Amino acid sequence: MRKVAILSYGLTKVEKHWRRSLRELFSDAAKKSLSGLNIPALDALIVGNMCASDLSDQNNIGALLADYIGITPSTAYRVEAACGSGGASFLAAYTSVASGMFDFVMTGGVEKLTDGVGGHTTLSLGKAADAEYELFYGSSFVSLNALLMNHYMNVFHASRDCFADLAVLMHRNGAKNPLAQLPFEITRETVLNSDKIADPITLYDCAPVGDGAAALVLCPFDEAHKYSDDFVEVAGVAGATDTLDVASRSDLLTLNSTLVAADKAYKMAKVTPKDIDVAEIHDTFTITGALSIEDLGFCEKGKFGKLISDGAFEPGGVVAINPSGGLKSRGHPVGATGAYQLSEIAMQLMGKADKMQVPDAEVGLAQNIGGSGASSFVTILRRAK
Amino acid sequence: MRKVAILSYGLTKVEKHWRRSLRELFSDAAKKSLSGLNIPALDALIVGNMCASDLSDQNNIGALLADYIGITPSTAYRVEAACGSGGASFLAAYTSVASGMFDFVMTGGVEKLTDGVGGHTTLSLGKAADAEYELFYGSSFVSLNALLMNHYMNVFHASRDCFADLAVLMHRNGAKNPLAQLPFEITRETVLNSDKIADPITLYDCAPVGDGAAALVLCPFDEAHKYSDDFVEVAGVAGATDTLDVASRSDLLTLNSTLVAADKAYKMAKVTPKDIDVAEIHDTFTITGALSIEDLGFCEKGKFGKLISDGAFEPGGVVAINPSGGLKSRGHPVGATGAYQLSEIAMQLMGKADKMQVPDAEVGLAQNIGGSGASSFVTILRRAK
Repeated sequence: MRKVAILSYGLTKVEKHWRRSLRELFSDAAKKSLSGLNIPALDALIVGNMCASDLSDQNNIGALLADYIGITPSTAYRVEAACGSGGASFLAAYTSVASGMFDFVMTGGVEKLTDGVGGHTTLSLGKAADAEYELFYGSSFVSLNALLMNHYMNVFHASRDCFADLAVLMHRNGAKNPLAQLPFEITRETVLNSDKIADPITLYDCAPVGDGAAALVLCPFDEAHKYSDDFVEVAGVAGATDTLDVASRSDLLTLNSTLVAADKAYKMAKVTPKDIDVAEIHDTFTITGALSIEDLGFCEKGKFGKLISDGAFEPGGVVAINPSGGLKSRGHPVGATGAYQLSEIAMQLMGKADKMQVPDAEVGLAQNIGGSGASSFVTILRRAK
Repeated sequence: MRKVAILSYGLTKVEKHWRRSLRELFSDAAKKSLSGLNIPALDALIVGNMCASDLSDQNNIGALLADYIGITPSTAYRVEAACGSGGASFLAAYTSVASGMFDFVMTGGVEKLTDGVGGHTTLSLGKAADAEYELFYGSSFVSLNALLMNHYMNVFHASRDCFADLAVLMHRNGAKNPLAQLPFEITRETVLNSDKIADPITLYDCAPVGDGAAALVLCPFDEAHKYSDDFVEVAGVAGATDTLDVASRSDLLTLNSTLVAADKAYKMAKVTPKDIDVAEIHDTFTITGALSIEDLGFCEKGKFGKLISDGAFEPGGVVAINPSGGLKSRGHPVGATGAYQLSEIAMQLMGKADKMQVPDAEVGLAQNIGGSGASSFVTILRRAK
């Protein structure tokens, strides 16, 4: 298998982009990723997106965006795995370069959620759940995760505060991220006293809804030095699945798809959780963040509360979690989120993360979830030199 | 790049499957593709679909179907390129095996269109067009293709009859296909006298709306003999794009995405159009079929009418076109259509096509289009022995 490198990335700010359409938003990110990069023509565009059909009346956005960024007749298609679309798109792009089929591939994601009127956005996002066994009965993502959070507190005698503390850390990190949607600090009380969404989840346990686009350029690792002084090795890539409906799982408090994907990615990269300096994880809700941290192997099952109070997830701790601010503060432009995470890890390993920089970061991990853990994509990147 | 083989395929009949849901329909095809096949666990499921979000309120169908066919926690994701989703999904699956990332991969497609009430199906299909430049102004696929058909007749002094003759040939072929949605013969008069949909296109120039699912199992070519006596070599695979909106193209009567993808696929397979014994092409409308036949290199531009009247597209002619009946008679379960075509070509090369069999078929081609030519995926298969 040919080794693959990330040559560059481009990100837009996550916010309500009322004045930028889907194609304009993605082209902003694509232009940034190509800026100053003197490469041959892109062979392909493989792009993650979940909601364009529902909220922008648009499918076939691979071809649409290939045309708009000026790379027609290159190959293009869309990849979808709900909120995990960005990670899935990266896996598809990775295999396309690793195989030798393509040399230069743009991958990434774009999501335009603010165009949805009324409850359209909520319904559209709900389609990541099982339509026949969850959505039809009125379950929403937040209600399912509220049950998990209660269950976690019961089983592990965890405090409500430990979840609030993750939100506080995310906002402290995100306040240093110029592209974050909610770049401000909060306190534990902000979380505890904010509106209840589905008890015990409050507003500040939840990632916000926003628009954004991210693009990454991949090429064969052995040729990357010709095009850039800063590039990153793709050391491990894996995806795994679980039941779409949460109730069918044998252990409600384990994200088995994350467990399996992480195990594969660690083995492929020949590293262990201890080797990871920085991780961007999928904290849709604070409970999702806690479960992810545990199932990625950064802390024993049930010990999240203890470790966050010890500062284990800050730079200098066990692992620096979400220096971008994560989904909670950077924002969660659904189908683009995985591509943001990968760009942010690449940024860290290239030493370009400015105020977010984790000192001496050499190995980083991105974990992107689709649905309530139905799909997970785990990618491990390594500094190239 | 590791050589890849198609080990097996499974197809459902194309029809209005009122009593089978999306997941049930796909699992029917998956079971058929796995029947009698003694392979290790599937590493991944990569599935094409366009309309499930709109018509079944369901996204993340990669994970959903992986669970339903019992291969969780294998990797899974969906690929979408409108009506070209099946071909795009095959390309993604091909690179995933060619790279060495995965050994056993199921690819395919599923579409459930009859669940759409009122105009929902028509609107959903319309999202393959450019939402801002075509759909918003009331253009539909049939109206765009009606303009192309008129333009073709004007530029090349072609008769109306030659398009009807393609429909007649498709129905003659499809009458021999037990899985076809419209398995009956028609005459030129049936086409000419059927209801006008968008002048000059009549009902019998159009592919019907139907449900269906198709699955194919891929593995490394060098290992295929361990698992089956009948397998097929994937000799050439390519995708290409064009503008989504038809009006922006420099030549309205050339499907440039097909031209480019075919050229790449022929080169990769080291064959020319003359070497193709059998082809499944994307005849959404008879005009789309005519343009496809020309742009795949089976006949000179503008000469389609002459050649069809000479019997050039029947077995024994230049190339046997759509022995399955094509989109016109076999049916067009949008995101699954590309996977039907590939299964049907594999069936021909394995000598299992029964009454549809093209004698001595050694090299076959499948061409799958997304939108009005915005994406094309061309795949060339070769008999393995």
